[in-house]
Amino acid sequence: MMTDAFQPDALWTPLALLPDGWRRNVFLTIGDDGRWKSVAPETPTPPAGAEVIAGAVLPGLVNAHSHAFQRAFAGLAEPAGDEQDDFWSWRTRMYAVANRLTPSVLRAVAAQLYLELLEGGYTHVCEFHYVHREASGAPYADPTAMLTALAEAADEAGIGLTLLPAVYERAGFGQSEVLPEQRRFLATPDDAWAMTTALEERRSARINCGLALHSVRAVRPDSFARLRRLAENFTGPIHIHVAEQTAEVEACLRETGARPVAWLVREGYLDPRWQLVHATHTNDEERDAVARSGAGVIVCPATEANLGDGWLDLPAWMATGVPLAIGSDSHVTRDWREEARCLAYGARLMTRRRGFGIAASTAAGLFSGAQLGGGDAAGELVWGLTPGARADALRLDLKQPSLIGVPPEKLLDAVIFSSPSPCWADALVAGRWALRRGRHPRRARIQARFSQAMEELWHSASDRPDAGQSFPVRKQKLSSGRL
Amino acid sequence: MMTDAFQPDALWTPLALLPDGWRRNVFLTIGDDGRWKSVAPETPTPPAGAEVIAGAVLPGLVNAHSHAFQRAFAGLAEPAGDEQDDFWSWRTRMYAVANRLTPSVLRAVAAQLYLELLEGGYTHVCEFHYVHREASGAPYADPTAMLTALAEAADEAGIGLTLLPAVYERAGFGQSEVLPEQRRFLATPDDAWAMTTALEERRSARINCGLALHSVRAVRPDSFARLRRLAENFTGPIHIHVAEQTAEVEACLRETGARPVAWLVREGYLDPRWQLVHATHTNDEERDAVARSGAGVIVCPATEANLGDGWLDLPAWMATGVPLAIGSDSHVTRDWREEARCLAYGARLMTRRRGFGIAASTAAGLFSGAQLGGGDAAGELVWGLTPGARADALRLDLKQPSLIGVPPEKLLDAVIFSSPSPCWADALVAGRWALRRGRHPRRARIQARFSQAMEELWHSASDRPDAGQSFPVRKQKLSSGRL
Repeated sequence: MMTDAFQPDALWTPLALLPDGWRRNVFLTIGDDGRWKSVAPETPTPPAGAEVIAGAVLPGLVNAHSHAFQRAFAGLAEPAGDEQDDFWSWRTRMYAVANRLTPSVLRAVAAQLYLELLEGGYTHVCEFHYVHREASGAPYADPTAMLTALAEAADEAGIGLTLLPAVYERAGFGQSEVLPEQRRFLATPDDAWAMTTALEERRSARINCGLALHSVRAVRPDSFARLRRLAENFTGPIHIHVAEQTAEVEACLRETGARPVAWLVREGYLDPRWQLVHATHTNDEERDAVARSGAGVIVCPATEANLGDGWLDLPAWMATGVPLAIGSDSHVTRDWREEARCLAYGARLMTRRRGFGIAASTAAGLFSGAQLGGGDAAGELVWGLTPGARADALRLDLKQPSLIGVPPEKLLDAVIFSSPSPCWADALVAGRWALRRGRHPRRARIQARFSQAMEELWHSASDRPDAGQSFPVRKQKLSSGRL
Repeated sequence: MMTDAFQPDALWTPLALLPDGWRRNVFLTIGDDGRWKSVAPETPTPPAGAEVIAGAVLPGLVNAHSHAFQRAFAGLAEPAGDEQDDFWSWRTRMYAVANRLTPSVLRAVAAQLYLELLEGGYTHVCEFHYVHREASGAPYADPTAMLTALAEAADEAGIGLTLLPAVYERAGFGQSEVLPEQRRFLATPDDAWAMTTALEERRSARINCGLALHSVRAVRPDSFARLRRLAENFTGPIHIHVAEQTAEVEACLRETGARPVAWLVREGYLDPRWQLVHATHTNDEERDAVARSGAGVIVCPATEANLGDGWLDLPAWMATGVPLAIGSDSHVTRDWREEARCLAYGARLMTRRRGFGIAASTAAGLFSGAQLGGGDAAGELVWGLTPGARADALRLDLKQPSLIGVPPEKLLDAVIFSSPSPCWADALVAGRWALRRGRHPRRARIQARFSQAMEELWHSASDRPDAGQSFPVRKQKLSSGRL
């Protein structure tokens, strides 16, 4: 039956995490569409033709929020010791890299990132993309040139991808245009809609399309209404950054009389397609309204911690029942295990408690939230080891130090809370092994291109991102209303 | 010159982190005592006989606080979803494991831990040891049986070790004895002093001895005075847990009229030998007094976050100039890179800033604090790539994804803040390669014994640590004064 070692028809494993928990002796079959055809626990003997997966099997997770290009400065945008650094000074450094990208550099950086994400346990990534134009602000001949670079990178790495072209129109509340260093981000609702429509032809077993609005601050109020009309019959996900920084919340309050999440609620935009990225600074009313709307929430714990965004009230969000998807955002961390730790540990440090009397705060609860919320964020109807879901999986290696001797019912606890030894070296995406026993068929080429791209960004030019500024970047003050 | 590939006489590397920063073309020679004999930057060509180390070289770091046995439940003491879990309920689970230890189980668990610590960038570990007796409370025929097991494990792994037998006398403030589940911890100042004296014969190029007092709550006030007299001419380090939990601070205040750190200051105990572990809940006066005393501070960021201890005021500690050593304590994380991230990220989440205008808060500052403070905690006069210091080092592999294309001056930023790909596979301890290109000569044996020990602890018995309690463990209430 098995015609291709990288593309099995069926798997059998002694232990797998199904939607109702750990089950023994699980037999899974895969359809020609790259989705699970059947999932049968309590199948004591591996049926003929099934690939036997020793160890245990977990669903792959969706990385629900990525700006792939930011991998090019992961760890390289740290404050110097003499600076009072914050999110806004970090953003200045980020722009310096964004403005040096070309489609080929982006492709090289994204391919390396996607390979690392597979190793970090993600089998799908949502690209919230806003670097649309040439650095001058002129459109590329093909307006989807940069998005195409991302799709090619995902194909090369073998990871799943949801492309989310973002509307970006202004420098901040009350502004009518972008800053010079934001020129290449410019996209109206009609531009974004045209990109999503053009990308339809790239849809595949691994590639989905959606839409994004950069944020309440960077999109004009009437453009929210325009995008709603354009996307009236669109069923894909709609992502937006919201309430990441207190300065943004304050400016929104001044400008609109409402906090950003409350504004989205008041204007009636939220529905189950919407995915709120960060949602760090929210109050009880906003959280309850999000829960009622059916919208999703995507947290980016390591990035939010690295940027000093502030503390997400995890117990309060968990009490609403909204599943929390995980995104690696700026990619300072490229492993969902560390993201889950960051999320739980931030809450424990703040509350001085470990458990919150909520199942969602356990390792199993964190994983389940990331699994369910991630599927929604990716635009998938179901996600996990269940019929109809994409055939994505990770093989847990029970001989890795963190898992040696761990009782089965505590496996997920050890996977998340015993670090850093890696727990897997095999990742299945849409029924195909993208990573097998730690080997990736295109690793050498991907790494060589990434190395070359990093050389171009950091070594070749006098205008490297941290050595002066090739754009008239203005330092923004946190206290100003101008974000 | 090189008679042993694992024991070089001299190294040459194109880039190394010396006490004054990154230096190029560094030639290091090693004496027969396992210490650096000379360190010469700007040596353009590798001298004959020197082993050439491609990439870059970092000092090894000291893991300044370890309870090795807790590796046996790393990740396995997480709260269930229906529990209001905290430090004290965690401690109940920890005691269940502590009370199942034998010297051979401890040796097996510690050897696996020490191997993982080498891989996590530590070349030395300080064992704060309080499991002295048999579970019944009867002394072992050799009172240093458990400490000897730790020393044998360190020998097997090839890591450096500072043994710290701890005084433990009572269940809490105002108590005169230990709880039944604490019986095997019992040690008077004279017992601890006798153990340290007996261990003198184990001293070697890699093994040091010191002393510990479990905490202000678990040691009688007059025993502090007794230990001071016994150790009057002792030059090794003296470690103590302090101010990890607010309940402990409150109980100390009620009992003594002073907070725990303030009490140590008031009684005049602190001097440069003293190492304060945690020091989480301190005020400005206490921090200033610690700085004036010359005592060290050891933080355990991942454990403190996992246990919900509360937030350490990092900017305030850094402003005092006290270097912060790092310990992995309960071993939920066994890599100093993640400990450094936990430390920095906790502070960023709390303050909503990234930089604090203090060089100590940068990657270089965090590393330097851990290097200097760690050396003090280990009882070493100097630590790092400098003559007289122990010849410990890590080889940075610049081809690892996190380091590809990173400019040399940003290497340490990327090492700490770009995760999770490992940055090294070679660790030198006292002039000998303990880990070489990822290989460890005794890995298979160590792992097999660990696996067997985990089997004994978690699978074989009906009284496994999480399945009922073989000891009359009483749940302790946070609000009670009885800790």
